[in-house]
Amino acid sequence: MRLAELSERSGVPVGTIKYYLREGLLPQGERISATQAAYSEAHLRRLGLIRAMIQIGRIPVATVREVLGHVDDESLGTTFRLGAALWAMPQPPEAPADDPLTVQVTEAVDRFLGDMGWHNAREIGALSPTYRTLVTTIVTLTRLGFSRGAETLAQYAHLMEEVAQLDLDQLDTYEDDSEKVELAVASAVLYEPLLLALRRLAQEEHSTRRYGL
Amino acid sequence: MRLAELSERSGVPVGTIKYYLREGLLPQGERISATQAAYSEAHLRRLGLIRAMIQIGRIPVATVREVLGHVDDESLGTTFRLGAALWAMPQPPEAPADDPLTVQVTEAVDRFLGDMGWHNAREIGALSPTYRTLVTTIVTLTRLGFSRGAETLAQYAHLMEEVAQLDLDQLDTYEDDSEKVELAVASAVLYEPLLLALRRLAQEEHSTRRYGL
Repeated sequence: MRLAELSERSGVPVGTIKYYLREGLLPQGERISATQAAYSEAHLRRLGLIRAMIQIGRIPVATVREVLGHVDDESLGTTFRLGAALWAMPQPPEAPADDPLTVQVTEAVDRFLGDMGWHNAREIGALSPTYRTLVTTIVTLTRLGFSRGAETLAQYAHLMEEVAQLDLDQLDTYEDDSEKVELAVASAVLYEPLLLALRRLAQEEHSTRRYGL
Repeated sequence: MRLAELSERSGVPVGTIKYYLREGLLPQGERISATQAAYSEAHLRRLGLIRAMIQIGRIPVATVREVLGHVDDESLGTTFRLGAALWAMPQPPEAPADDPLTVQVTEAVDRFLGDMGWHNAREIGALSPTYRTLVTTIVTLTRLGFSRGAETLAQYAHLMEEVAQLDLDQLDTYEDDSEKVELAVASAVLYEPLLLALRRLAQEEHSTRRYGL
């Protein structure tokens, strides 16, 4: 399709698409004349992903470029490609590693990963920003007096494990590794608000049932 | 306890506590002399909640004051108090109501709520910012080409319903309505990052299992 059709089907203005092409976020189309290029369904899909990251995730353009670099890196295996793309996304600030509470929570998180049987996650450990985010979050909860026991954490973790399985089932419907990684990035940006909205709506439903109006 | 002890136990500087007192976020202590006041465990807990909203949730002070006003409003029943406090928190932008895709998604969401048996949530409907957020999120997913069928949505919803039940089980351990509502607000701010970190960590675990390294 031509640039005008790509713009119409994606809802992204022509000027913005040209900007993404110049910035290297969107690969060049196939040149069909000195002034015209043809774009594919892959361009349309990529455009959706870029919009998701910039408009919904509010991720800076330089970071989007880095994430997409990993999405497109065919030299990596699927897990590393997924990891590299997701880990390049903005992460919350980390707890200081030398703080006694952080040390204590880190030990508790390692035990928890063992109890969950998440041995790969424990092995990747502090290499993963997600692991560090989990430690920081629990440090904050503890410091503010809202921390819960290991048992409650495990109950939440089992449910989120089922969510993660659903996420990966979705990825598995794509044969192509690039598409898998694209969907993983989009899902991080777009499915997080969806899951949180579903949780809050279910809270409203069940709060009404338990406590009346 | 005195102000100095409140500061030490909460980790919040004395000057900041005085600012929260002046701004009416934290109730005044019990006056014990012309220059001294005594603070209770309730002050400590409230301080944790204020820090969670401001530091983690990055919620403006004026909004925090409004949320806490609902937390403290004993004239409301539990559900309304929970709702008023949570609904006063910052919400994502809404999809334009007159857009054809929004109309179509709204109908789909109403059917979905019926299928889930979330009849109270359907009745509250567009009164609830959460309902409107769900519609907006699905509109965005659809527009960007990452929307999934009703069946997938229902699978996610069932899991988040179990999460919400766990959330409410936590609330039920508090007898006092004010404490219930405080925990609900803290849980919205602090448990969302926890749940998302658990989901991402489980994704890493299972992605490694499915795809190797």
